[in-house]
Amino acid sequence: MDNQPITLKVSVRDVRFGRNVKVIEPTSTIGDDSFVGPFVEIQKNVSIGQRTKIQSHTFICEFVTIGNDCFIGHGVMFANDLFKNGSPNADPNSWGRTVLEDNVTVGSNATILPVHICSGAVIGAGAVVTKNITVPGTYLGNPARLSRKF
Amino acid sequence: MDNQPITLKVSVRDVRFGRNVKVIEPTSTIGDDSFVGPFVEIQKNVSIGQRTKIQSHTFICEFVTIGNDCFIGHGVMFANDLFKNGSPNADPNSWGRTVLEDNVTVGSNATILPVHICSGAVIGAGAVVTKNITVPGTYLGNPARLSRKF
Amino acid sequence: MDNQPITLKVSVRDVRFGRNVKVIEPTSTIGDDSFVGPFVEIQKNVSIGQRTKIQSHTFICEFVTIGNDCFIGHGVMFANDLFKNGSPNADPNSWGRTVLEDNVTVGSNATILPVHICSGAVIGAGAVVTKNITVPGTYLGNPARLSRKF
Repeated sequence: MDNQPITLKVSVRDVRFGRNVKVIEPTSTIGDDSFVGPFVEIQKNVSIGQRTKIQSHTFICEFVTIGNDCFIGHGVMFANDLFKNGSPNADPNSWGRTVLEDNVTVGSNATILPVHICSGAVIGAGAVVTKNITVPGTYLGNPARLSRKF
Repeated sequence: MDNQPITLKVSVRDVRFGRNVKVIEPTSTIGDDSFVGPFVEIQKNVSIGQRTKIQSHTFICEFVTIGNDCFIGHGVMFANDLFKNGSPNADPNSWGRTVLEDNVTVGSNATILPVHICSGAVIGAGAVVTKNITVPGTYLGNPARLSRKF
Repeated sequence: MDNQPITLKVSVRDVRFGRNVKVIEPTSTIGDDSFVGPFVEIQKNVSIGQRTKIQSHTFICEFVTIGNDCFIGHGVMFANDLFKNGSPNADPNSWGRTVLEDNVTVGSNATILPVHICSGAVIGAGAVVTKNITVPGTYLGNPARLSRKF
């Protein structure tokens, strides 16, 4: 059972249900020795590697894969629906997929659209990542641009 | 009783009160079949229409009116005090009013100052909306600017 | 005992602990008549003055000092690690120090890196403060720039 991932156990309790309420059993996984801070929401179909830290106030949407040894700061929002037709699309097949390779660092209050971010990238605090990142370095601003190569 | 709005019922419990604590009974309304995610704060004097979704981590301040069939993403912050005199103004009469018409979509981590946003507008993730929006389209950046008309 | 600061009392309860869990006794202080909203995380080694308001969804990291009569909006993220070597540095001696003098106003969704902000500064909603602020005025954008002197 070495390195067996810990399955997220979420319980819903002390809740008064209104009408039309759906509760979905989570299907996401978080690897060994990872950390999730307070006030975090992780949706289903998310995969988080080992020794990765997810800090407070962060939201991770469906279809996000985060590698090992990543750091996701506070208040980071992942988004997978680009509202291409002018409003949300309810069909999950239309949503983008996001991959953060190992050793990716994301600063607080950053926003991550459905992109692929290579190992060794640093996303600055408050940056909005709208395109794939293929070169290790620091990316800053809205939209995020390469500020410094490593 | 058709279409009777659901009044927000908030309870304060398991709280140890310090001195000088005020608890305000909410006066906001949320329409039928709307959704409010976790870690959301909605202040008083807010009106939310029908079938509108408010996602996690979002804060809605006083004097915000949101129409029907809107989507408010995660970590969206509404603000009504422009700090015009260099600090917060405690007088609610000095605060701006915000209106989102029906079918407005707001991406995650966006910031909405006291503005009027027309039906069919899409606010990109991480955008900061500082001016009225009167033309349907996608608005991106800080400050938010028209990126694509529909 | 006049003006004796109130020590933060945080309790951890109703929690099922996993392995490798550390719980740290807080050492931060908050002055008289200050206010802390819901969904706020304040780390250790933080000092907050008197009559200062910390609004909902805000995260205050270690080594942040906030003066008297400040206003910190909703969803404000303080960060002290600049990831200079391409990833988080676990050594607290490497982290920056942040000081907000008295009468500083920070708009919602702003991000504050380790800087010194002078009395009378107003940080606009959604701004990202990357440099010291020494002149009172309004600072907007990402990165934040002086928009209007007082």
